Amino acid sequence: MLKVARETLRASGPLWTASLILDRFALPALRLWPDWTVAAETLAEQERTLLRAWGMPEAHVEVTVGHLLYADLRGIDSHGCGMLAHYHRALRSGQLTMAPEIRVVREGETTAVVDGGGGLGHVPAETAMRLAIAKCRAAGVGVVTVRNSGHFGAAGAYAALAAEAGFLGVATSSTAEPALVPTFGVEAKLGTNPIAVAVPAQRNRPFLLDMATSAVPIGRISMHRRRGRAIPAGWAQDAAGWPVTNARRAVAQRRLTPLGGGAETSGYKGYGLAAIVEILSTLLGGGAGQPARQVGHFFLALDPRKFGEDGEFEQNLDELMSSLRATRPTDRRRAVRVPGDRAHASEAERRRSGIPLCRAVVEEIRAVCRASSVAFLLAP
Amino acid sequence: MLKVARETLRASGPLWTASLILDRFALPALRLWPDWTVAAETLAEQERTLLRAWGMPEAHVEVTVGHLLYADLRGIDSHGCGMLAHYHRALRSGQLTMAPEIRVVREGETTAVVDGGGGLGHVPAETAMRLAIAKCRAAGVGVVTVRNSGHFGAAGAYAALAAEAGFLGVATSSTAEPALVPTFGVEAKLGTNPIAVAVPAQRNRPFLLDMATSAVPIGRISMHRRRGRAIPAGWAQDAAGWPVTNARRAVAQRRLTPLGGGAETSGYKGYGLAAIVEILSTLLGGGAGQPARQVGHFFLALDPRKFGEDGEFEQNLDELMSSLRATRPTDRRRAVRVPGDRAHASEAERRRSGIPLCRAVVEEIRAVCRASSVAFLLAP
Repeated sequence: MLKVARETLRASGPLWTASLILDRFALPALRLWPDWTVAAETLAEQERTLLRAWGMPEAHVEVTVGHLLYADLRGIDSHGCGMLAHYHRALRSGQLTMAPEIRVVREGETTAVVDGGGGLGHVPAETAMRLAIAKCRAAGVGVVTVRNSGHFGAAGAYAALAAEAGFLGVATSSTAEPALVPTFGVEAKLGTNPIAVAVPAQRNRPFLLDMATSAVPIGRISMHRRRGRAIPAGWAQDAAGWPVTNARRAVAQRRLTPLGGGAETSGYKGYGLAAIVEILSTLLGGGAGQPARQVGHFFLALDPRKFGEDGEFEQNLDELMSSLRATRPTDRRRAVRVPGDRAHASEAERRRSGIPLCRAVVEEIRAVCRASSVAFLLAP
Repeated sequence: MLKVARETLRASGPLWTASLILDRFALPALRLWPDWTVAAETLAEQERTLLRAWGMPEAHVEVTVGHLLYADLRGIDSHGCGMLAHYHRALRSGQLTMAPEIRVVREGETTAVVDGGGGLGHVPAETAMRLAIAKCRAAGVGVVTVRNSGHFGAAGAYAALAAEAGFLGVATSSTAEPALVPTFGVEAKLGTNPIAVAVPAQRNRPFLLDMATSAVPIGRISMHRRRGRAIPAGWAQDAAGWPVTNARRAVAQRRLTPLGGGAETSGYKGYGLAAIVEILSTLLGGGAGQPARQVGHFFLALDPRKFGEDGEFEQNLDELMSSLRATRPTDRRRAVRVPGDRAHASEAERRRSGIPLCRAVVEEIRAVCRASSVAFLLAP
């Protein structure tokens, strides 16, 4: 174990050392300060001013802020304003263009391919899902992929667009860097490759599953790291395949366990799902077969009215949701939920009472504002 | 715990007692005999004679035997001849018709709904996937659901039909009895609801994921029970939510853990996937919102040629498969595999050397043959 740690330290060099100093001294100090809470509109304005300052065209700014705020409001804290520092780093290193040309490069009656132009993924992804919805309206089903794209925030936001239009929606994405370790392996070979499915109901807000195909997304481990918490065994592993519980080491090593965990508890299923997401999101749209280099997305919209009477499907979904919520719970204080319940509740609560921000994230955004010569708006 | 056990015993009555006697005395004796191996053609002939004796029309017999043998050959031992005793029980209790009327009850350009007529699921499912493939050939994508159906064997067989036609194929099914317990619950509310995805490559046999959305399918626990083995913690739970490792208790209680396990290791994802399969397979085709009563299926075929140049996608998939197989392994004697590798290897081996049958399954089939007045063909 000590040998592995020493080797990792040597391999990562100054970055590791800097992260060590941050974790040992700076972050523990920040942790003593409480979280603070900002109004959704204030956070949106901060996101807007930063994206503008980075040279993003106004039409793209509105869509992108909409997606950042979607995640901020729904408690997907790693995919909203928590990504700003990461986007800024990518921009400064020349890996990201802020004014990409987004084009439909191939189109059929039920299908299309969108080229994202090498920018952030939010705008090409929203363009693609809206195109899939239009095709679904005409033909009963629409499938659109995006290639040459970037991080697109929370996958659920795109699936939800289809549900708003009355359709069943699917959204998947590959991710830029390998993070997920195939079953029986010790190297990360696939991204955390999320899958989102949204389904419209009648009385209820949509059924909404939004999940990484790793046991947890890397952002969730980062949030533990920022808060100085250990992670449970089963989220990440080390170079020898053993579980890692130190969140800092887990983030640095990027070797996430697939959904399901080890082979005995069917981790090969999470690995298989991650591979399917890679196939749909990257390979289908013409991306390369070397995984996790190019970011691509996949969107599908399907019209339930093609399969039954008007409204019948939505009513049946309401009934299924009621039946699932009525499941006898292990603990009477913790009810069984339906996918989407937590995100919907978080949205209502955060629209009302503001968005709680972890201090480490606030300090990251303060630094990004300074480096971008933009006013910092999140002071309490 | 003792109280729970007593209550369960009282609730299940004579069935429980019979199963207890079988487990305590008959099965341990069988276990002393080795497995035996039968040629694929012999097993197919046994399946054929039984289905004919039960009154299945000849055209349906060929399709159904094809699907039973698909599972028998690929090592999915719980879904081939291991189902014969179950089908026979359903037939005798009047829950199953052997000569169902299978009809396309709704059809659009890209979509259709098939009514299975209340029989076994193999024939309506194959009908539906072939229809989805025909629609995909014309429109780039085809989606067909089946309602009023039954057990359809291994989901992968239907996804594989699409891959054989050069398309990406998806197959899902709900199951007759609830078995999967939602996260934070103690009651089974959904089926083990499998998902299969098959994708055609060029040099390689297709990528093929075929997975229950529970940690493992109920059939796998039954196979452990038949062999007198304990199951690992994380597959099933008891009425209080604790892990069960006794395979007999796990089969009797039918409370399976979703893929992912507990809430901390994201079991809510397996639960969410099971709910999506219920929505696609049962609700979409006009089934009721009370889960896990009606068996329905969902099939999708998607043409990769709509998204890129001819052959490009398949070559990229070959490259992805090579890259995944080249992942550095935890243990050099156990290579990283691609979904489908094990099933393809098992098929080749079993076509060559025969299909090994567990003695408990052989004895079940012998009893079914006797009750059906059909010659028993599996004697070594």
